[in-house]
Amino acid sequence: MLGRLSELQGGLTRVFLSAEQREANALVLAWMREAGMTASVDAIGNCAGRYEGLGPELPCLMLGSHLDTVRDAGKYDGMLGVIAAIECVSALNSGGVRLPFAIEVVGFGDEEGVRFGSTLLGSRAVAGTFDRAVLDAVDAAGVTMRDALRGFGLDPEKVGAVARRPVDVLAYAELHIEQGPVLEAEGLATGVVTAINGGNRFGIELTGMAGHAGTVPMHLRRDALAAAAECVLAVERIAAELPGIVGTVGRIEALPGAMNVIPGKVRFSLDVRAPTDERRHAAVSAMRAACEAIAQRRRVAFALTPLWEAKTAMCDPELQRQFAAAIAAEGGRVHLLPSGAGHDGMAVIAIAPIGMLFVRCAGGISHNPAEAVALADIAAGARVLARFIASFVPPREAMGTP
Amino acid sequence: MLGRLSELQGGLTRVFLSAEQREANALVLAWMREAGMTASVDAIGNCAGRYEGLGPELPCLMLGSHLDTVRDAGKYDGMLGVIAAIECVSALNSGGVRLPFAIEVVGFGDEEGVRFGSTLLGSRAVAGTFDRAVLDAVDAAGVTMRDALRGFGLDPEKVGAVARRPVDVLAYAELHIEQGPVLEAEGLATGVVTAINGGNRFGIELTGMAGHAGTVPMHLRRDALAAAAECVLAVERIAAELPGIVGTVGRIEALPGAMNVIPGKVRFSLDVRAPTDERRHAAVSAMRAACEAIAQRRRVAFALTPLWEAKTAMCDPELQRQFAAAIAAEGGRVHLLPSGAGHDGMAVIAIAPIGMLFVRCAGGISHNPAEAVALADIAAGARVLARFIASFVPPREAMGTP
Repeated sequence: MLGRLSELQGGLTRVFLSAEQREANALVLAWMREAGMTASVDAIGNCAGRYEGLGPELPCLMLGSHLDTVRDAGKYDGMLGVIAAIECVSALNSGGVRLPFAIEVVGFGDEEGVRFGSTLLGSRAVAGTFDRAVLDAVDAAGVTMRDALRGFGLDPEKVGAVARRPVDVLAYAELHIEQGPVLEAEGLATGVVTAINGGNRFGIELTGMAGHAGTVPMHLRRDALAAAAECVLAVERIAAELPGIVGTVGRIEALPGAMNVIPGKVRFSLDVRAPTDERRHAAVSAMRAACEAIAQRRRVAFALTPLWEAKTAMCDPELQRQFAAAIAAEGGRVHLLPSGAGHDGMAVIAIAPIGMLFVRCAGGISHNPAEAVALADIAAGARVLARFIASFVPPREAMGTP
Repeated sequence: MLGRLSELQGGLTRVFLSAEQREANALVLAWMREAGMTASVDAIGNCAGRYEGLGPELPCLMLGSHLDTVRDAGKYDGMLGVIAAIECVSALNSGGVRLPFAIEVVGFGDEEGVRFGSTLLGSRAVAGTFDRAVLDAVDAAGVTMRDALRGFGLDPEKVGAVARRPVDVLAYAELHIEQGPVLEAEGLATGVVTAINGGNRFGIELTGMAGHAGTVPMHLRRDALAAAAECVLAVERIAAELPGIVGTVGRIEALPGAMNVIPGKVRFSLDVRAPTDERRHAAVSAMRAACEAIAQRRRVAFALTPLWEAKTAMCDPELQRQFAAAIAAEGGRVHLLPSGAGHDGMAVIAIAPIGMLFVRCAGGISHNPAEAVALADIAAGARVLARFIASFVPPREAMGTP
């Protein structure tokens, strides 16, 4: 049932409003219709399909993921969630099954933000949180998003109409590859996501004293790189001690950068993510305090510049429970894990409770042509998603607040 | 007596066989002659002056330092030792004093190696260890050293004749600024050099596993930068524990170098120097073993490439004793210290025992226009050098092996 995936293997760079997106949209719309849905492209370029429930105009369970990719991407990131959702609807349709809610499947046109540097454009439009100022953003070729939408046959003035009302969306559920190594290490095909982690990024600069590598004795040095090395290890230690926290120093630069000169200045980046905002703030505070103490002890000046922050998007506990029940019913062991990467649910949470199902990928590798998912795992994920849909109870009802 | 120094203040970049060297040579030759010496430029471009002793053709005490500079240099590095030596001879000449040995003062034309990338050219020619293959080295403009010598009015075929016989050189003694912060920290104007440290340079590459900064939990990472950070601290710790050793990581590069990617590969440099070759080898072994153990524990591949090695040039113990006696006679406290930087003595040691006197410089700063030496310290250094010369006993005689 998933052989269709291979039809898209060539398209490893597919950015927002590109010719490749046009082709992908045409394919996805055809599959949606074949699965018994009405389907069309909305004003922001999302593919939107609808499978009616037992009655007309019922609120929907929204499923989906994104159709765009990073550059030189793998073929599962995003796409797998759209195809799996369509397959689930197709199975219902083949069996003539209608549920007490509608199902909508959305293939979001932009999640990665590659072309215009602003992420989650498709899901923000659906959630009504699309920032119209972004229409003036330009791509690398100088084309504004407004003109790109027009060139794609869309009307930028109608983006606002893409927004859905909370009352019409019972929940949003997404199947996605993990993009990390946890499920592989656990030996599991699928896992239930607890939250889409929030994050902070900082630039840190340490200023010591440059000097001749041969003439300055160790005890008289104020080596900015030795101080930075302690900071890197403090970040690692603090992240490892706190559950669910990851902390990464991905960039580092030592100045003047000569083999025979003690580094007088070092700049490095700090990326911190956590499954709750409270734990993230606590981790950031601990890391900052540790780095400041290291700098002070080594008589090195410390400066920190905040660069980026995103809040945590908590997955709805009831949807987590329903995903867990579906995994268990399929004979799987239930493993809960946070998502370190961002997903469309971060936007959709503005109008509906969100849930996510992760599928194991090889080596945790993603954003890379080497991205790989075993066919058996894809099938396992699709079965869990199908069972989740069939057993779905809207979280507001399940919690006794219809 | 040292006001002449200011005449050269403008020349802060003076490389081998340049127009600036021609001007400097003319000045230095004039000062040498004014101080009672015969003086000329030799076939490698050194300024060589001779002040006869009590009889003709006596073997000499050779004094000197280099006249070339790094780019954007300070004005004391090298030059101070030449001027101080000339001043000492001038004082002898003014007093009509002749000693039981001749004095020669050499202003070496190249020590820094800026123009042709090969250091100690002047002193190697004097020591007879000049490598004629270097005549074919080219500067940044594509000019060979051979042509540069001709353009300077010198005959490249005669460089071999610059070599001195060991029997003609009783010892080589050099006054130089410390280029480090030790004497300043000790509160001393001068210090006796025990050795010109040998050194090793290596390139080290650590290869772990790149990954998404958000999705790979801490315990599943193989972060090459965290491993490198431990190595940086191990180098620092080992160097601090071993007396006289300095170890420096001056360059570091983390790949792929994105804020949201765990570094999969890190390259860094390692520079190790020591006052004895034995201690240097021991330090290098300890550092290498520590880095390898860190890499192994973190499941990161380790590769080390040797880039450069220089042996230690030990200062003659008897010359150290005579310099110490001169400092003490001038009322100073005697402090012994190694030289972390390279000096002409590293070449001259091939034909004569060497000794060095260091003069305090501000903040240990050198190879920088901010290089500064107090006038009182210059005067103190010159007085110690004058007393050393007046009391000089050839080490071979002093050791009972005339």
